[in-house]
Amino acid sequence: MSKQSLAPPSGSRDFLPDEAQFREAVFTKIKAAFAARGFVPMDTPAFERLETLTGKYGEEGEKLIFKILKRGEKAASGEADLALRYDLTVPTMRFYAHKRNDLPKIFKRYQIGPVWRADRPGRGRFREFYQCDVDVIGSASTLADVETVLTLASALNALNFGAFSVRLNSRHIIAGMMAAYGIPASATGAVTIALDKADKIGLDGVMQEIGGLELPKSATDALGHDLGQSDFEARLRDRLAGDDVGLKGLAEVDTMIALCDGHLRDGRIIFDPILARGMDYYTGPIFEFEAEGLGSSIAGGGRYDHLSQTFMKEAVPVCGGSLGIERILLLLDREKAGLPDVASPVYVTVWDNDSRGDSVAVTEALRRAGIAAELDLVGGKIGRQLKQADALKRRFTILIGPDEKAAGTMVLKDLHASEQTTVTEAEAIEKIRAAMTA
Amino acid sequence: MSKQSLAPPSGSRDFLPDEAQFREAVFTKIKAAFAARGFVPMDTPAFERLETLTGKYGEEGEKLIFKILKRGEKAASGEADLALRYDLTVPTMRFYAHKRNDLPKIFKRYQIGPVWRADRPGRGRFREFYQCDVDVIGSASTLADVETVLTLASALNALNFGAFSVRLNSRHIIAGMMAAYGIPASATGAVTIALDKADKIGLDGVMQEIGGLELPKSATDALGHDLGQSDFEARLRDRLAGDDVGLKGLAEVDTMIALCDGHLRDGRIIFDPILARGMDYYTGPIFEFEAEGLGSSIAGGGRYDHLSQTFMKEAVPVCGGSLGIERILLLLDREKAGLPDVASPVYVTVWDNDSRGDSVAVTEALRRAGIAAELDLVGGKIGRQLKQADALKRRFTILIGPDEKAAGTMVLKDLHASEQTTVTEAEAIEKIRAAMTA
Repeated sequence: MSKQSLAPPSGSRDFLPDEAQFREAVFTKIKAAFAARGFVPMDTPAFERLETLTGKYGEEGEKLIFKILKRGEKAASGEADLALRYDLTVPTMRFYAHKRNDLPKIFKRYQIGPVWRADRPGRGRFREFYQCDVDVIGSASTLADVETVLTLASALNALNFGAFSVRLNSRHIIAGMMAAYGIPASATGAVTIALDKADKIGLDGVMQEIGGLELPKSATDALGHDLGQSDFEARLRDRLAGDDVGLKGLAEVDTMIALCDGHLRDGRIIFDPILARGMDYYTGPIFEFEAEGLGSSIAGGGRYDHLSQTFMKEAVPVCGGSLGIERILLLLDREKAGLPDVASPVYVTVWDNDSRGDSVAVTEALRRAGIAAELDLVGGKIGRQLKQADALKRRFTILIGPDEKAAGTMVLKDLHASEQTTVTEAEAIEKIRAAMTA
Repeated sequence: MSKQSLAPPSGSRDFLPDEAQFREAVFTKIKAAFAARGFVPMDTPAFERLETLTGKYGEEGEKLIFKILKRGEKAASGEADLALRYDLTVPTMRFYAHKRNDLPKIFKRYQIGPVWRADRPGRGRFREFYQCDVDVIGSASTLADVETVLTLASALNALNFGAFSVRLNSRHIIAGMMAAYGIPASATGAVTIALDKADKIGLDGVMQEIGGLELPKSATDALGHDLGQSDFEARLRDRLAGDDVGLKGLAEVDTMIALCDGHLRDGRIIFDPILARGMDYYTGPIFEFEAEGLGSSIAGGGRYDHLSQTFMKEAVPVCGGSLGIERILLLLDREKAGLPDVASPVYVTVWDNDSRGDSVAVTEALRRAGIAAELDLVGGKIGRQLKQADALKRRFTILIGPDEKAAGTMVLKDLHASEQTTVTEAEAIEKIRAAMTA
């Protein structure tokens, strides 16, 4: 068995205990933050019918779907009928369409779980990775968009992530802008995609890309000129003055900023009129969270009021957001996040075979008292057992030798306090409790 | 979109919020019970290389593996290179062989996660279901077997599952029994499998199955005779008296019962000399947990000291056990389990658009004070909003009308106490806190 074939498949990860504990603790804190705002969990299977996922992610996305071979005699056909979920959003809309009669009228859901994409693996890019979503399904109110932003912010704050900024825009503003600058409807998609790249290729790069689209010269000139000005926002507001769609977008953004302001703790929220976001299903406010000073996106989302129609007749208004949880896990300061040290503090040694019962009994008594305790399984000489306790960084060790056994006592060693005392079981419990709450 | 195609794929499940919350709360309690005994979490990907899983589950099991089609140009070949994990044990052994240098000498791991089997779906039988395993890797001590049993028991007790019994045997006893009754080595596997069915087909059924194996008549006669006797255990102990392997098994069982006894709370442990368990990788003590009065298996496990050799040269001693978590979830009494009600207790209404800021501010203040609170997203008339609060069973509602806004107060309604008071924000926090801790 080669070392290579023992590794997890390309792009996937094994999690050692330390990492698994860290991820678990982070998820737990995030879930608590979501639950405190009335969001509830739900889940869907890892796989969906292939046809549920096809046609949802564009040509490039579709190539990245992991497909599952038919079973039994049909396996030989080489055909697939199931596929691993590519995101949490599409399965959730399928779930919602199926179960809406069992769900509250306004359904505030969260979900943290793995998704799979056959992307080329790279630094920080995995084929199995977690997504962490909140969505408000069934409310067209701008308050729902506000709640989505505040909820994502509260999760970051619960983790003491540090300073972040929220850039906010609305697809209504983008639509109004296109009309105001005379961009033909046929080109608005391409221009939006170009604008979305501004933080990567700069405004010059954006205008170069737009220049290649064969638009009316007057349109690109006007847009190019205004985009470069420091008062672009004021110019845009002027241009949108007579445009209902554009004004609707400005009202959304202004309302959201006014209502979020002062409630973001370590975050701030700003209007970014050229924020576009990639997915073409957005229909209203859109936003992106960045780690202050790092310029890297750590969350994002927006309103998508038509995606439901993929699975049902009605257009159900939805807004949602997603924490870039894998990136957040990379950036997080474990100490600041206040994650608990879950290692058991007590190591109970076993003197010999005849005293196994005494050691089991004291270990169980500690556990009943709510103190995590570990029984030695190495065996052999006490020195070897204590070495194991040391390797595991256990604070307390307990030893019951023949003298202690006869006296009904035990030796309790506190490695932090470099203290060793002979105590009864009740005293040991009391001492460990006192030391740990000190 | 037909109702059928909106359902999750055959054999898989969507989890509504209530069920998702319940499962999550149960997993959290179980993890805490495991962690209190020094077990640590780890995880492996949902998929493994196909060759990692092939040849591990027998011919029947192998047919049930979900295989993943190759990607890109290779997809057309209809070939698979990956497969969804079929259990947690085999991937864990792969993980251990790969990472053992980064793991403690004695590695006590737990894992709760989904596995996939293309079984025919049926009542309580799913194609995606959770397993919940603990294993002690690297210890040959019988104390490790004891810890495994006590750990599974403590998880059941933490959930207030109710009375259960642990049937215990050892593969050494079965081996000794085969020798003692003159069963030829070539038939021990088949006889073991027959014995394993005793709780389903009865002893007569077992003997009928053994009768069909073409064994020496003296062997089947002696075994059949003794099996039917009420003092079968005493007869077996006599027959094993001169057999080293059999004696080793008796010592294991007697030691485990002595050490577990008195520490199982709602459980009891008994020697069952014909317990065999299906998997052929067991090498020592084996056990099965049953819900008292239901006769249904809710946990099981044993020692398997050779499975590691599939992935590495050395035979690393391992013992482990698994909670039948899907069945336990079905049988569990939610109230007895003491699972928390996670619904947010406070519903903050929104008088009109101009007072949105006030409602957001009080909602945020409650959350900062550690009180889960929900902001109305229904909008419109207050009556409609209160109806929504009622549908969601929220205990408290908060209302800020023009009078309250002018006075800097709010109306707090406690539906349990049928009480309505006009209070400041600080008073509202105090009142809600007092009511909830009362």
